[in-house]
Amino acid sequence: MTGKIKAAVLGATGMVGQRFVQLLEKNPWFRLEVVAASERSAGKKYSEAVRGGFPMEFSEETANLEVQPLNPKKLKDKDVEVVFSALPADVAYKVEEEFAREGFIVLSNASSHRMEVDVPILNPEVNWEHHILVDEQRRRRKWDGAIVTNPNCSTAILTLSLKPIMDNFGLKRVVVSTMQAVSGAGYPGVPSLDIIDNVVPYISKEEEKVQAESLKIMGSPEKPASFKISASCHRVTTIDGHLEAVFVETDEKVKPEDVVDVMVKFRSEPQKLNLPTAPQPPIHVRFEENRPQPRLDRMAGGGMAVVVGRIRKDEVFDGVKYVVLGHNLIRGAAGCSVLNAELLKAKGYI
Amino acid sequence: MTGKIKAAVLGATGMVGQRFVQLLEKNPWFRLEVVAASERSAGKKYSEAVRGGFPMEFSEETANLEVQPLNPKKLKDKDVEVVFSALPADVAYKVEEEFAREGFIVLSNASSHRMEVDVPILNPEVNWEHHILVDEQRRRRKWDGAIVTNPNCSTAILTLSLKPIMDNFGLKRVVVSTMQAVSGAGYPGVPSLDIIDNVVPYISKEEEKVQAESLKIMGSPEKPASFKISASCHRVTTIDGHLEAVFVETDEKVKPEDVVDVMVKFRSEPQKLNLPTAPQPPIHVRFEENRPQPRLDRMAGGGMAVVVGRIRKDEVFDGVKYVVLGHNLIRGAAGCSVLNAELLKAKGYI
Amino acid sequence: MTGKIKAAVLGATGMVGQRFVQLLEKNPWFRLEVVAASERSAGKKYSEAVRGGFPMEFSEETANLEVQPLNPKKLKDKDVEVVFSALPADVAYKVEEEFAREGFIVLSNASSHRMEVDVPILNPEVNWEHHILVDEQRRRRKWDGAIVTNPNCSTAILTLSLKPIMDNFGLKRVVVSTMQAVSGAGYPGVPSLDIIDNVVPYISKEEEKVQAESLKIMGSPEKPASFKISASCHRVTTIDGHLEAVFVETDEKVKPEDVVDVMVKFRSEPQKLNLPTAPQPPIHVRFEENRPQPRLDRMAGGGMAVVVGRIRKDEVFDGVKYVVLGHNLIRGAAGCSVLNAELLKAKGYI
Amino acid sequence: MTGKIKAAVLGATGMVGQRFVQLLEKNPWFRLEVVAASERSAGKKYSEAVRGGFPMEFSEETANLEVQPLNPKKLKDKDVEVVFSALPADVAYKVEEEFAREGFIVLSNASSHRMEVDVPILNPEVNWEHHILVDEQRRRRKWDGAIVTNPNCSTAILTLSLKPIMDNFGLKRVVVSTMQAVSGAGYPGVPSLDIIDNVVPYISKEEEKVQAESLKIMGSPEKPASFKISASCHRVTTIDGHLEAVFVETDEKVKPEDVVDVMVKFRSEPQKLNLPTAPQPPIHVRFEENRPQPRLDRMAGGGMAVVVGRIRKDEVFDGVKYVVLGHNLIRGAAGCSVLNAELLKAKGYI
Repeated sequence: MTGKIKAAVLGATGMVGQRFVQLLEKNPWFRLEVVAASERSAGKKYSEAVRGGFPMEFSEETANLEVQPLNPKKLKDKDVEVVFSALPADVAYKVEEEFAREGFIVLSNASSHRMEVDVPILNPEVNWEHHILVDEQRRRRKWDGAIVTNPNCSTAILTLSLKPIMDNFGLKRVVVSTMQAVSGAGYPGVPSLDIIDNVVPYISKEEEKVQAESLKIMGSPEKPASFKISASCHRVTTIDGHLEAVFVETDEKVKPEDVVDVMVKFRSEPQKLNLPTAPQPPIHVRFEENRPQPRLDRMAGGGMAVVVGRIRKDEVFDGVKYVVLGHNLIRGAAGCSVLNAELLKAKGYI
Repeated sequence: MTGKIKAAVLGATGMVGQRFVQLLEKNPWFRLEVVAASERSAGKKYSEAVRGGFPMEFSEETANLEVQPLNPKKLKDKDVEVVFSALPADVAYKVEEEFAREGFIVLSNASSHRMEVDVPILNPEVNWEHHILVDEQRRRRKWDGAIVTNPNCSTAILTLSLKPIMDNFGLKRVVVSTMQAVSGAGYPGVPSLDIIDNVVPYISKEEEKVQAESLKIMGSPEKPASFKISASCHRVTTIDGHLEAVFVETDEKVKPEDVVDVMVKFRSEPQKLNLPTAPQPPIHVRFEENRPQPRLDRMAGGGMAVVVGRIRKDEVFDGVKYVVLGHNLIRGAAGCSVLNAELLKAKGYI
Repeated sequence: MTGKIKAAVLGATGMVGQRFVQLLEKNPWFRLEVVAASERSAGKKYSEAVRGGFPMEFSEETANLEVQPLNPKKLKDKDVEVVFSALPADVAYKVEEEFAREGFIVLSNASSHRMEVDVPILNPEVNWEHHILVDEQRRRRKWDGAIVTNPNCSTAILTLSLKPIMDNFGLKRVVVSTMQAVSGAGYPGVPSLDIIDNVVPYISKEEEKVQAESLKIMGSPEKPASFKISASCHRVTTIDGHLEAVFVETDEKVKPEDVVDVMVKFRSEPQKLNLPTAPQPPIHVRFEENRPQPRLDRMAGGGMAVVVGRIRKDEVFDGVKYVVLGHNLIRGAAGCSVLNAELLKAKGYI
Repeated sequence: MTGKIKAAVLGATGMVGQRFVQLLEKNPWFRLEVVAASERSAGKKYSEAVRGGFPMEFSEETANLEVQPLNPKKLKDKDVEVVFSALPADVAYKVEEEFAREGFIVLSNASSHRMEVDVPILNPEVNWEHHILVDEQRRRRKWDGAIVTNPNCSTAILTLSLKPIMDNFGLKRVVVSTMQAVSGAGYPGVPSLDIIDNVVPYISKEEEKVQAESLKIMGSPEKPASFKISASCHRVTTIDGHLEAVFVETDEKVKPEDVVDVMVKFRSEPQKLNLPTAPQPPIHVRFEENRPQPRLDRMAGGGMAVVVGRIRKDEVFDGVKYVVLGHNLIRGAAGCSVLNAELLKAKGYI
């Protein structure tokens, strides 16, 4: 294990926290050194502190880790360099700043800092070059650490599918209607009485996030993209995997087969750098008429790829419409931040 | 029961057929005189012929009806005037024509004849005046009967919600993404292995139907409407009730509150004529942030109303977006054809 | 409305509380005068205090009721005589005693007092004669009111099905394995992450309740029955309706047809007294090989009947086995207490 | 790949057939040489013949196999020695005999031959010594091949959990109530309309199989065991994994901790022989109060182990009760037959 960079997970007991831990257990560049959480859990054995009812499986070693408090000093003592944050948004704001100020690189799934101008929302295949905002952030905030966020889950999936279209044909307008899994709401999250034989056509703040974050991610580091985007977000009865129906108007007229072509061929910086967590390829295109489906396709590329299907002509924009699926907890959360960390290391920030 | 018009249900053993029977049992204008079905079922007691596994509840009298063959002569002998058809599309084409030729008014849920120029797709609150196509049809086809269809389920729900917007502000573009219940596929229909913990992003021919039928219904009797429409259709894990996310560009600029206003106030010909099956009001507008939901709202107005919620600004069209729900087997199928029959009677065709 | 006895519901905002309100809205003997709940809700309009996400439908009048605090004096001022309690067990213990002491008849769904020797657990068709424990209770506790409980949901359903067997053939041993609906855990209750594509083979304290309460109910007012009973309780993915597989050894040897016969003919005191909420008949016996099913059968007898099917020979006891279904929130909770109130009135306690 | 024994899968396109293929792809002793199926599929590419809607993932090589007809001669030409049969029961009877007569070892998941006296139902950890019935079978039937069956899915799981109890304390009576996954009914199998928000308390012939097969398996090769057993079988809304509530009376009085102890320590012939597919250990005992759960535990031991939990005192038999879970398509079907083949090879039959 020598040579690996020591990492900690903040908010390690929740669903996204557990995913971070699971992904780090097998990461070749980072070593899970510390699991940290709120006062309620600190001091407990990790396997006992993990939020009940839906535990993932961990190694013996991980299970026996003692949960640490959210204290930068303590982590410094253990030579941790990188922290992954799965903290709830209200707690994350302050705690993540404390860690960045103490020199840690903070890879965050929390929405708290995402929309700040000097904080990148990184979805590496889409906007890897936004890493330069870290320099700006350090200049402005006078700290050695940094806060780098991953997008909201639906946004991560959507923007990855849009990237080759934007690059090749330009984007004018995007309409997206999501069908999101219950794991996106954490545990206990969505009550079963709300979702058996039902759909809930509302997810708090989700549409605003999808719209604002997509523009920030797909713009330049300095300024958001200028295409128009409108989202409608819905919760359905799936465990994992967000499915999104997407309608696109491009600058340049396209045919469905053009879009198939650029998606199939799409490779980006993480693939070129051969980052350990980068899916090869990042977009799986399916040609069956009834794919992608959440239960069958969510683990494509280890949960890091998105799966696109039903690429066809759109009648409203004279553009294309398609369906895209991604794993909300991996590509849409923990996995994306792990890939961000790998990118930052490859770019010399870590 | 004197004075009621005698009616038959063709294809009475399937899911839509059973709904027809159930609705006719309590209809004040029509009397269920005959249940008819294919050779396989003819001669059996209705309660035994009903497609297994998911039977609805019927009166003793209905349960004891002997299933008749699909034979116009036989129904003539029983003084049946009106037949409701829940036949599968492949069978319906020929059988419905035979009945129309023999002078019956055929109210059909089958798609076979919908797109013919002299056959109305009637969704009474939206295009009641299309009943005049019956005159055209009789002239052209030289028969005394008539074929009048109801729309595809998703289309019936969508167009009802669009009607007051079109009337007041004009329609330019409509994007719709559906989340449809499994009962829409009949019985046995969708295998449970396909839908537990899953979404299927494809329903055969559904998108084409939604697009073509919406334009026909919302146009004049002579020619389809000219707005643009694009649909993406998905099957989710609900029993009954199709939910649709709708994005609308209007001719005249609108604010969400304008749309709320015209939907709340909307009444149409069936309401004015006080037809027995007409929902009062036809559109229920909900103001909670998380409604409509299929399980909670599908029986609004006895399953004949649609429920609209989340009417809000749309960023792509500078228009509105909203969510609409309707009962796919009632407003979207059998109930709509029963309302069509009532309209035709009120207009003197029966 | 004159002449109706004024009633209140304590804990009116939860799922069982809402069922009480819904049942009382249409009860011919009792009039819903007051909805009461904890401090958190008191003072609010009932429709706004109702626990979110899964509201039932109420009349305009009910929706506008102001939620009262859990204060006996306040209810006295409004001439309330009878209170229905859907309080959580921890709160119920003390509050219910306060109301009984002040002279109210308390019909409780809480488990707090069920196992006390002078408190009846009434499931009227099974042990209506246990009402005499009210006299004993008043003597011992020196109060004018009374606490009368309904059984735990699974127990109510099970014992109703066992009653005609016990009466006719005697009971020696009962094994029961339940498949219980999520509504039994209240709202928010069971997280969807725990139950989609899953079964949870554990419900806290449920097996102990089924075993102890069944013996108390099926014994004399003075002492529990002496048959042996063993339960295994499981949560499955249904909204409403508990299904139970039951294996029975009788004192006297029986054939399945004997059990069918006594169940079909079974009528008890509530049916003889023609109590408004008494189902006629209390046990529906189905002969199809695949019934009862929760979604199809839970509303039998307005939710107050149980449905028994698959009565067949049991190979372990040389007895019978069968499957029984009942609505957990109606027969298994609120409906049972309403029937208890009607019984007490018929017996002169109210 | 040299040295591996060549194997074929009969009925390779259904759900169990696909599992056979998937398991054989990675088996170190057997090599998947041929996929065979009915006329309808023969001649097609395997990946295209696979039953639609719910395909598993296969290697490129497997996907490209041409489906062969169910013809022993053809398989002889390809040097196949062992055939795994996932044929439907009606077809299996005759076809399996043809293959056995031609000298093939037939490992069958079909129920057709299970109850014949000279055909073993092998669940290797439970009754490995029943392999000697193969000698008897060959003597009687005068063929060089053999038919060896695996148990019905629920039976395989149940008997594995009962084995250490029987060996250590003796079995007197067993009551079992199952909650079975929809994949047990194949594809398309259970309609979604039957199982969403529902339980179906009936599975055709399942209870008879569980009862008769358990006694045959747990007896000597010559005669069935003599304990009493009664089953009630139910279909619930899970994809994979049968859960069973078990109540046991033993010859010798036991305490729950005794049963825990013998289950934890249990190892059998497949473990001693270190057969490649043998789970180590075969029984996983969980101590959490709410395990095993189908979604969390069905893949224990690669789907070959059973998971037992909630081992506790039973009040009816003064015995024990517990809950056991197993993967119905792996331990309960294809995996069991693969393990049977490995056992037969270790014992010199192949």
